[in-house]
Amino acid sequence: MFNVILAGGSGTRFWPKSRELFPKQLIRIVGSKTMVQATAERLLALSPVENLFLVTNESHALETCRQLVPFGFHSENLIAEPVARNTAAAIGLAARVLAESDPQEVMGIYPADHIINNTEVFERTVKKAVEVARQGYLVTLGAQPHRPETGYGYIKQGLPLSGFDQVFMAERFTEKPDLISAQRFVDDGNYFWNCGVFFWKVSTILEHIRQLLPDLFEHLDNLYFHLVAQKGRYPFRLLDPEGAGIFERLPNESVDFGIMEKAEKVAMIPCSMEWNDVGSWTTLEDLYEKDENGNVFSSNVVSLNSKGSIIQGEGRLIATVGIENMIIVDTPDALLICDKNQAQDVKKIVETIKKEGKPQATLHPTVHKPWGSYTVLEAGTEHLVKRIDVNPGEMLSLQSHEHRSENWTVLSGTARVQKDKEILNLNKSESIFIPKGSKHRISNPGDSVLSILEVQLGDILKEEDIIRYEDAYGRPVKNSS
Amino acid sequence: MFNVILAGGSGTRFWPKSRELFPKQLIRIVGSKTMVQATAERLLALSPVENLFLVTNESHALETCRQLVPFGFHSENLIAEPVARNTAAAIGLAARVLAESDPQEVMGIYPADHIINNTEVFERTVKKAVEVARQGYLVTLGAQPHRPETGYGYIKQGLPLSGFDQVFMAERFTEKPDLISAQRFVDDGNYFWNCGVFFWKVSTILEHIRQLLPDLFEHLDNLYFHLVAQKGRYPFRLLDPEGAGIFERLPNESVDFGIMEKAEKVAMIPCSMEWNDVGSWTTLEDLYEKDENGNVFSSNVVSLNSKGSIIQGEGRLIATVGIENMIIVDTPDALLICDKNQAQDVKKIVETIKKEGKPQATLHPTVHKPWGSYTVLEAGTEHLVKRIDVNPGEMLSLQSHEHRSENWTVLSGTARVQKDKEILNLNKSESIFIPKGSKHRISNPGDSVLSILEVQLGDILKEEDIIRYEDAYGRPVKNSS
Repeated sequence: MFNVILAGGSGTRFWPKSRELFPKQLIRIVGSKTMVQATAERLLALSPVENLFLVTNESHALETCRQLVPFGFHSENLIAEPVARNTAAAIGLAARVLAESDPQEVMGIYPADHIINNTEVFERTVKKAVEVARQGYLVTLGAQPHRPETGYGYIKQGLPLSGFDQVFMAERFTEKPDLISAQRFVDDGNYFWNCGVFFWKVSTILEHIRQLLPDLFEHLDNLYFHLVAQKGRYPFRLLDPEGAGIFERLPNESVDFGIMEKAEKVAMIPCSMEWNDVGSWTTLEDLYEKDENGNVFSSNVVSLNSKGSIIQGEGRLIATVGIENMIIVDTPDALLICDKNQAQDVKKIVETIKKEGKPQATLHPTVHKPWGSYTVLEAGTEHLVKRIDVNPGEMLSLQSHEHRSENWTVLSGTARVQKDKEILNLNKSESIFIPKGSKHRISNPGDSVLSILEVQLGDILKEEDIIRYEDAYGRPVKNSS
Repeated sequence: MFNVILAGGSGTRFWPKSRELFPKQLIRIVGSKTMVQATAERLLALSPVENLFLVTNESHALETCRQLVPFGFHSENLIAEPVARNTAAAIGLAARVLAESDPQEVMGIYPADHIINNTEVFERTVKKAVEVARQGYLVTLGAQPHRPETGYGYIKQGLPLSGFDQVFMAERFTEKPDLISAQRFVDDGNYFWNCGVFFWKVSTILEHIRQLLPDLFEHLDNLYFHLVAQKGRYPFRLLDPEGAGIFERLPNESVDFGIMEKAEKVAMIPCSMEWNDVGSWTTLEDLYEKDENGNVFSSNVVSLNSKGSIIQGEGRLIATVGIENMIIVDTPDALLICDKNQAQDVKKIVETIKKEGKPQATLHPTVHKPWGSYTVLEAGTEHLVKRIDVNPGEMLSLQSHEHRSENWTVLSGTARVQKDKEILNLNKSESIFIPKGSKHRISNPGDSVLSILEVQLGDILKEEDIIRYEDAYGRPVKNSS
C-alpha cells in the first residue's frame, strides 16, 4: 500500500513554539521526535519507505526532507504545493502521482500532526481498512468521542458492512457541531470523531474526484506534467511556475465536504486507538500527567500556590505565584501568557503579531538550514553574534557578503574553511577573519557536529546579504559571469 | 547639614529585576536613573556633595560607588556594613563618623529606595525639619495616608509645637497595623505614614543611643576605629575583620522601635510630598498611567482581551490572551508570573529559588563590574560566550586562567590588550587569542565604550578561575612570588 502524509499546518495555534515556517508538524510537542517524524515512523511499520509520500507547502519542503531523510524517506516522494488549496487538491495531486506506479493499489491518508498512541490497535485497524478499500470503498477511521468537542467533525455509524467485523457504512458527516449537538452525539453512542485518516484505491479516489470535483480533476494530468524534481541533496518535487499558476486557481475544497459527504460507498471503522489532534496548548493536559495541583509544567519552574496551569519553557527559570488556569509558553524570543479558556484565540494574537511585521510570527531564533542550523545570540546595530552548527558531512554554500565581515571561532569539531583560493582546517579555539567581499565556505569533514561562533560586523546585517556561487542543496546561485 | 542615605535593600520584592547583589536601590524602577541615583540627586539640592553619606552592605559598595561617583559622590563617604543589623546600627555608625566633623550639625536620614515626586515640597519640608532638629528634637516626616495600607508604620499627630507652623509632637508610633486599625487611622485624619525620613543633630541622636540603646553605644568608638578606607579607585570605608566581628554582634534594632517610640522630644512634620515606598510590583500602578483596560505595560507587548495587569519586559516580545490582574516580569534569565493580589509573596518564591541554589536569586546575566559589565550570551558545557563592555578609561585586572583559553573580537571601540609581555591595540573586527595560563589585561584607552565578544573554551568555565596580579579597584590580588 501507499501511505501519504498531509502536512499542511500553518503554525499559529502552537505559537510561539510553532512559527509560520515551523508549523506544528515540524516541532516536538511530546517525545523526542517531531510530529512528522513520529507520523512517518508509525507508517514505516505498515509499508516500505519507498511507498511513503508526503504533501506539504514548498516553504516547508527542505526542512521536512531534513527531518525525514534520516528515516530513509525518499525526497522525491515529497510533493510541494506552492499554496495551500485544502485537502482535496493535495490528495488529488498525490493520487495522480501514485497512479503512475499502480492505480489499483490502496493509498492511506494521514495528517502529519496528530498523535496516535496505541500503535498496535492502529496497525490492526489500518490492515482492516485496506481490505475494505480494496472492495472499492472510501474508508475512514472513527475515534470514540469521550467529550462533546465542538472543534471536530462527527461521523454517524450506519449499517454494518457484510463480510467484515466492526465495519459500518458512514451514514452522515457533521462538521464542527454546536455544543448541544456535540453532547447529543456523545450520548447517542453511534457517532465517532472524524480523524482525517482515509483509505481508498488510487483509482477509486480519482474516479470520485472526476465525478464530484470535475474542476479539480481536469487539471490533474497537467499538474503532474509540471511537477519537477529539485536539484541538490533533497530532490523533492515542486510545480514549475506554470504548474503553480494552475494549482493556485484550483477550488479550495476539503475532501470531507467535497467527496466523503457526497459519495455513496463510504465505510467507517470505529477505532479504539488513543487519538489526539493536538489542536491547541490545552491538549498537553491529555498528553502529560498533571501534578497534585493540576499543573503540567516543563522543567525549571518554581511555583507557589499555582494550579490548573500549563507551562512550556525551554530551560529559562520561570517562577509563578498564585496563577490559575493559565498557559505559559516561553521561547528565547517570544513569551505567551494565555487564559486556558481562551487557548483557541492564540491564532488571533499571532495574526496581530504578523500584521505588525514582527519576525516572531515567522521564524525561531534558531533557524534550521539544510546543512544544520544557526542561532542568533545577540543582535546589535552593527554586530550580530551567531552560533552556527553544521551537521557531519554537510557544507554551507560558497558565498560572499557585500556589507559585512565575519569572524569565526571553532567551539567544537573541526571546520574546513575555504577563504578565496585558500583551504584550511580549523580546530577548537582557532579563529579566522573573513573580510567583506571574500568568497568563503564552511564544511564539516568530521563525524560530529561542528559548532562555530560567528561575529558579523557591518553597517547592514541581513540574511539577504548573501551572494551564493555554489550550493549543495539546490538553492539558487548567482549566474557565473 | 549632613545627608545620610540608608541603602539596605535585600532585592527580593522586585525580583527578577532586583537580585540579591542588585537590590531595588541599584536598579531602575521608574525614569532613567537608579533609585539610589535619584535619591542622591534629590539630596544634592539640599547640601554640598561632600556632606552626602551612604551606608550599605559591603557586597553593594563597589556598585553603589560606580553609580554615584558620576554625580560627584565621594567614595570615602560610603560606609560599608559587613552584615545588615537594622537601622539603629547603621545610623549609630554614621552619626559616630559625622561626630568627627561637627557633632552640632543636623543629619538627615533617607531610605535609598523610596520615590518622592514633589521635590519642591520635599525641599521646603526638609528646611523646616532642620530648624526643628536644631532645637534638639528628633524629627520625622509624616505622609498623608490615602489608603489603609497595612504594610506601613503610622504616626499619631500630637500637640502643635509652638514657634513652628504645622509641626507637631509625635504622640504614638504604630508599626504595621491590621486592616481595621489602618482604616480607622485613615478615617481619623490625625495619623500619618512613617516615611523613614528623620532629622536630628548628630549629638542628639548619639545621646539618645547612649540612653536607649547602650549595647550599641558602647561599641561605636571602637567601630569607628576599625573603619578602614579601601585601596583603588573607590576608597569606600569598610570595617576590618575585628570591627566586622563587633558589628555582627550588635543588637538588631530599628531606630523606630529602639529610639523614636521611646524618646520624649519627637516631632512630626506632615508632608504633602508624593511619597511612595515602592514596596512591591503593584506600586507600578501608582507610578505609571494605566491604559484603557487598566494595564501598565512596557514596550513590545501584544495583548488581546487583557485587563488590570502589569507587564515589565526588557524588549522580548510578550503576547497575552485573556489575562486579568497579573504581574509579569520578564528578564533575560528569569520570568515571574504572579497574581496581583499575591505580590507580597514574591519574596517567598525568591527564598525558594535561593534555597535551590539557582543563580537567578543572586545575579543578573549582565554583571556590573567596577570597569563596566559583562553579559553572558550563551553558556555551553565547554564554551561560554560573553559580551564585555569596558567604560572609557577603565581597565580589567591583570589576570590569567588555569582552565580556559579566550578569544576576543572587538565589536566597537578600541582595545588596548596586554598579552604576557606584548601590548597591542585592537580595532573593530580584529581578534586575539589568549591561551590558557597567559597573563592578560584589557583596557579601554578611548572615549567611548569598548565592546568585546569573548569566547571562552575550557573544561571548567567558572568566574572563580581568575588569578589576579594587579587591579585598579583594590580587589584582592595574588601575592607576588
